[in-house]
Amino acid sequence: MLVQKYKDMLSGKSVIRELSEFATARGQEIGYENVFDYSLGNPSVPVPREFTKEMVRMLNGEETSALHGYSPSLGITSVREAVAESLERRFGLPYRKEHIFMAVGAAGALAHAFRLVTEPGDEILTFAPYFPEYGPYVNLTGAKLKVVPPDTDNFQIHFGKMEEMLTEKVMAVLVNTPNNPSGVVYSAATLKRLAGLLKKKSEEYGHTIYLISDEPYREIVFRGVEAPCVSCFYDDTIMCYSFSKSLSIPGERIGYVAVNPHCRDAETMVNMCGQISRGIGHNCPPSIIQLAVAKVLDRTADLSVYETNMNILYNELTALGFTCVKPGGTFYIFPKALEEDAKVFCRRALQYDLVLVPGDTFGAPGYFRMAYCIDTEKVERSLGALRRFVKENYAGQGMCL
Amino acid sequence: MLVQKYKDMLSGKSVIRELSEFATARGQEIGYENVFDYSLGNPSVPVPREFTKEMVRMLNGEETSALHGYSPSLGITSVREAVAESLERRFGLPYRKEHIFMAVGAAGALAHAFRLVTEPGDEILTFAPYFPEYGPYVNLTGAKLKVVPPDTDNFQIHFGKMEEMLTEKVMAVLVNTPNNPSGVVYSAATLKRLAGLLKKKSEEYGHTIYLISDEPYREIVFRGVEAPCVSCFYDDTIMCYSFSKSLSIPGERIGYVAVNPHCRDAETMVNMCGQISRGIGHNCPPSIIQLAVAKVLDRTADLSVYETNMNILYNELTALGFTCVKPGGTFYIFPKALEEDAKVFCRRALQYDLVLVPGDTFGAPGYFRMAYCIDTEKVERSLGALRRFVKENYAGQGMCL
Repeated sequence: MLVQKYKDMLSGKSVIRELSEFATARGQEIGYENVFDYSLGNPSVPVPREFTKEMVRMLNGEETSALHGYSPSLGITSVREAVAESLERRFGLPYRKEHIFMAVGAAGALAHAFRLVTEPGDEILTFAPYFPEYGPYVNLTGAKLKVVPPDTDNFQIHFGKMEEMLTEKVMAVLVNTPNNPSGVVYSAATLKRLAGLLKKKSEEYGHTIYLISDEPYREIVFRGVEAPCVSCFYDDTIMCYSFSKSLSIPGERIGYVAVNPHCRDAETMVNMCGQISRGIGHNCPPSIIQLAVAKVLDRTADLSVYETNMNILYNELTALGFTCVKPGGTFYIFPKALEEDAKVFCRRALQYDLVLVPGDTFGAPGYFRMAYCIDTEKVERSLGALRRFVKENYAGQGMCL
Repeated sequence: MLVQKYKDMLSGKSVIRELSEFATARGQEIGYENVFDYSLGNPSVPVPREFTKEMVRMLNGEETSALHGYSPSLGITSVREAVAESLERRFGLPYRKEHIFMAVGAAGALAHAFRLVTEPGDEILTFAPYFPEYGPYVNLTGAKLKVVPPDTDNFQIHFGKMEEMLTEKVMAVLVNTPNNPSGVVYSAATLKRLAGLLKKKSEEYGHTIYLISDEPYREIVFRGVEAPCVSCFYDDTIMCYSFSKSLSIPGERIGYVAVNPHCRDAETMVNMCGQISRGIGHNCPPSIIQLAVAKVLDRTADLSVYETNMNILYNELTALGFTCVKPGGTFYIFPKALEEDAKVFCRRALQYDLVLVPGDTFGAPGYFRMAYCIDTEKVERSLGALRRFVKENYAGQGMCL
């Protein structure tokens, strides 16, 4: 018998994937350069040259057993040391290799974090708008993902709603800042209040509520914005990082879990990750990729295009009358649709070859996401279509029409 | 609260790891070249040059987004096609890319296979002697691994015991041929009888009993031995392959699931693997490694040293009076210890700097494993220690002493 729950998932259609497939098909008709595909969050900038150079240097110069041999189940020791040193330098917390577990991308890091602190039936709280894959990531462990509705004023945390939902069943709270899909960075005030609430409730319930911080966009922060270090606010934080976006290597599945050194049992938790891996089958991330990222920990791809694109879109959208929180980072923007049903709004936009994703997918109906990890030239060309779309469908609603 | 089951696992000591740590520590005292470390199954031969060349060629010549971008969740299409074509050519079954799911090593492939066909509480049957990691791999899914005792005459399958244990709760049978730790290759007669029994019992119970075939040693088969294709005997076979041993790249975590094209719902099963990945966090294997192995599918590292080592050890062991089934492949041999308790036997051997692993770990007490993936020169030097060990402890038991 095939297991029904996975079979059932096959009929569930991913809105983002469907839109992306539409974009590809439409591209075959009219040329992909004429499709303004804002559907996918796929890094568009080249990998840093140093990464490629390091890979080639190792392949040409080092013994194959050192490059491609088994990694210890917690990760290559020198790599864990390098990651810890870099985190300590940047964030001022006393990270050591004992706090670092190398993981296959953020998905792998999260898969370990969830299993560290939840049993089937427990709850994990996250905040809309949120990355929709959190649903299957959490629910397939047997725990339940609960989503706190958004504070649409600023896409920080809706603490009123959160307090209602933070029951004794909640074992962890999952945050993602800078945020996919809103682009918003949680402020120090937000994180301080969050930490205070978690501390209070942990004491009240007699068990630690862990904070799981998913940080794949940590390095994509725009000028004038400060992205506070989540772990610095709360001892019981499990940081989940991925190099996918900072180095433009999403296919190489490389990231880590970093347990806050001040977290009780931090070292035990990292060792437990090595046990969790045995059950879920990723015993270590690819060894040569571990070695290569360790050489470029303080570098990123040239991420400036994302800020350029954000400014162009933000200015145009607000000029057209959209309500829109200005992103502080990532390569997403999350404006309010010009009609109540964002699904209808996005469907209409397709007629202008604008591929936008309705916010329902992210737990925020009435909004839509644009992933602007595309060439600036294309962003600029899309503005005409955007203007026509708004003018021909929503004249009078936008301020400047 | 940290999850107890993973915490508990930390106190469980791996015998193999302890022995390997002993070998490392002893090596620091007397020089590692003087420790006859037969503990770890870690490939000792260099990676094929073509693999390294392909990696360098791609890194120097191709766009980084093509090399390091997201892979589709089932694997890169061209890679799946190449794997299917190679399998069809070799085994004569009509594999297409729709039957192939790229996985992060054999552990990743198995993690998907188990979840495809078992729910918590179901049973998976395997055969002693067996790879001890199967325990946590299966049991952490919630299913239960049951081990059929060995047929010590030849380390084929003990069908009498198997029939007793093949109850209605068994949803899958897990085989590993060529076998770790015995080195034995299942014969066509064994596989035919196994298939017949599974077919009969599937009909009797009204549900398919799947055959999961773990084949990381498929390419390490010695002269004069034929290693029959497991999938060719039974339609409902899920093949789990890893390139770790054939290409000496165990750290790169690359393998695949290949569902027998004649298996009902084969394509659905592959699609389900893509859903399972979402829950266990390895959405695709590293993309550049996928691309590189696809270029060298029909190559292997120079594996001849393993056969050379096997012959030296087999001849010496049998000359010393050990009872030993001759390995048909792998880089393991699994002789009977010269006293009842193989743990005591292996402990005694340490005094001669011979690091052997007791068979208890593999579900076959009274036997011991030697992993001879080491230099031939060291195997030859170990023979003196082996002779002294036997002579000084077991004189009179060996035929030639």
